[in-house]
Amino acid sequence: MISIAIHGGAGVISRAQMTAENERAYRADLERALDAGYAVLESGGTSLDATVTAVRILEDSPLFNAGLGAVFNHEGINELDAAIMDGATRKAGAVAGVRHIKNPIELARMVMERSPHVLLSGAGAEEFALEQGVKLVPGSYFYTERRWKQLEEARRDDKMASADEDIGFFSTVGAVARDRQGNLAAATSTGGMTNKRWGRIGDSPIIGAGTYADNASCAVSATGSGEYFMRAVVAHEICARVRLTGVSAADAAKDVVHKLLVEIGGDGGVIVVDKNGELSMDFNTEGMFRGARDSRGRREIAIY
Amino acid sequence: MISIAIHGGAGVISRAQMTAENERAYRADLERALDAGYAVLESGGTSLDATVTAVRILEDSPLFNAGLGAVFNHEGINELDAAIMDGATRKAGAVAGVRHIKNPIELARMVMERSPHVLLSGAGAEEFALEQGVKLVPGSYFYTERRWKQLEEARRDDKMASADEDIGFFSTVGAVARDRQGNLAAATSTGGMTNKRWGRIGDSPIIGAGTYADNASCAVSATGSGEYFMRAVVAHEICARVRLTGVSAADAAKDVVHKLLVEIGGDGGVIVVDKNGELSMDFNTEGMFRGARDSRGRREIAIY
Repeated sequence: MISIAIHGGAGVISRAQMTAENERAYRADLERALDAGYAVLESGGTSLDATVTAVRILEDSPLFNAGLGAVFNHEGINELDAAIMDGATRKAGAVAGVRHIKNPIELARMVMERSPHVLLSGAGAEEFALEQGVKLVPGSYFYTERRWKQLEEARRDDKMASADEDIGFFSTVGAVARDRQGNLAAATSTGGMTNKRWGRIGDSPIIGAGTYADNASCAVSATGSGEYFMRAVVAHEICARVRLTGVSAADAAKDVVHKLLVEIGGDGGVIVVDKNGELSMDFNTEGMFRGARDSRGRREIAIY
Repeated sequence: MISIAIHGGAGVISRAQMTAENERAYRADLERALDAGYAVLESGGTSLDATVTAVRILEDSPLFNAGLGAVFNHEGINELDAAIMDGATRKAGAVAGVRHIKNPIELARMVMERSPHVLLSGAGAEEFALEQGVKLVPGSYFYTERRWKQLEEARRDDKMASADEDIGFFSTVGAVARDRQGNLAAATSTGGMTNKRWGRIGDSPIIGAGTYADNASCAVSATGSGEYFMRAVVAHEICARVRLTGVSAADAAKDVVHKLLVEIGGDGGVIVVDKNGELSMDFNTEGMFRGARDSRGRREIAIY
């Protein structure tokens, strides 16, 4: 079975603020990403290509907190993180704190495939990008008025992010997929937290925390209050439970999201694909922008 | 039982180059770190204090690749990483790519205890340090002639690190401990790889990869070819095996170091303390600078 799941972040998604028009816009972009990723799998493409295709579309949408539309840090700058992992080889690549990369997920893949490293950061990661022929974009490319207003509000209240107001508080994006060869992949991309300071790096670019893939168990992309996902090493924890105890990926995900994470105070969710292509999507927040499609005919987009 | 183990890196440790005088110097600093950490535990101090005490001494020694004596990156700058984790609360703190912090392990602890974050990086992490009252040191503080020569050689050969020549190729430092209250802690500090580029971040500051602690299972500090430790999420993998399958920490460590890591091509080792205070130290390289001491009377320093 070929299958793909995507997410556009979990958190407080206020039904009051979510107008019908707003909801249509979110659903349309999620659908576009889901179907484009699925089309890659359907034409015999790899799970790596499918996840990158889906994540790139979400990065290019101004609605989600990744690529265009990313949140601003305390200094009013967009700092982007992304990671990808190949379940067949357990190779991985990630970037943290890049400021001029239109599609961080593509740079993460270059780190995996063309460098001896797993994680590159900051200006150094952009130097690597230049050496790979990537065209940098000006910081202003990432600007959206909505995110700027969120920063102003967060600065005014001196808090990290504004949970009440923000549709998609943790609206990191991600994808997991299984291709025809049975290979799994996971990809995640984010702008982090509004008003973040001190070069903070969250869970998304951390292999094991926000992103993990292993053909022997499953592939996971996470979204939520990153620090808790890092402390619980959520993505690797789910894969380790499947591999070591034989529990299903769906049950492992449910347990980790609703017990382990809740126990330490973490909010958010995960999307998971297991080695047979079974998809699961779990969250302990009010909602999670998400989509799932497989070759058994499942095709759904959901928010709450 | 109270106990502590420390490491000063694993790798190719050439017996030919290791003169008697050299070996005495390494042993003396390892002994000093081990005994100082143990003294903290003996006087009723916490495992967090014990590991920080031991790691700080290794950071201040010019012999190891952490703090003073750290390796140089491609641009001839010392960029330091460190992480700490508290097994009782599963709180963690880490810093990556700092250039003016004498004792990165202390800053990692401040991140854990005084910020809402887990991982801070680069100039932002130093901004946080300043806000915490930490006095920055000039980059020249970290200079040692030996490391500079290693950089020159690595640049000449255009490679990342010079495995043949370098005593302590991967000479990251770390400590794990169990205190009288039964609380575990793990701490790791490093300068990364000689001639590293592009803002590369290795496994040491990544919670789960190079550092993990959980009272329910064990505490682990790793050293080696960081990218492989990141891909296998080594420290968390060992703890997960103990917690999920009931295997001993010693057996889990042995299996991960000699099978899982070898399978993907990773070199290095780990030190582990389990919830009862049992210590184990395992490596798949020629040697690992290490020490272990417990309240049953074990006290040893070893290299090969």
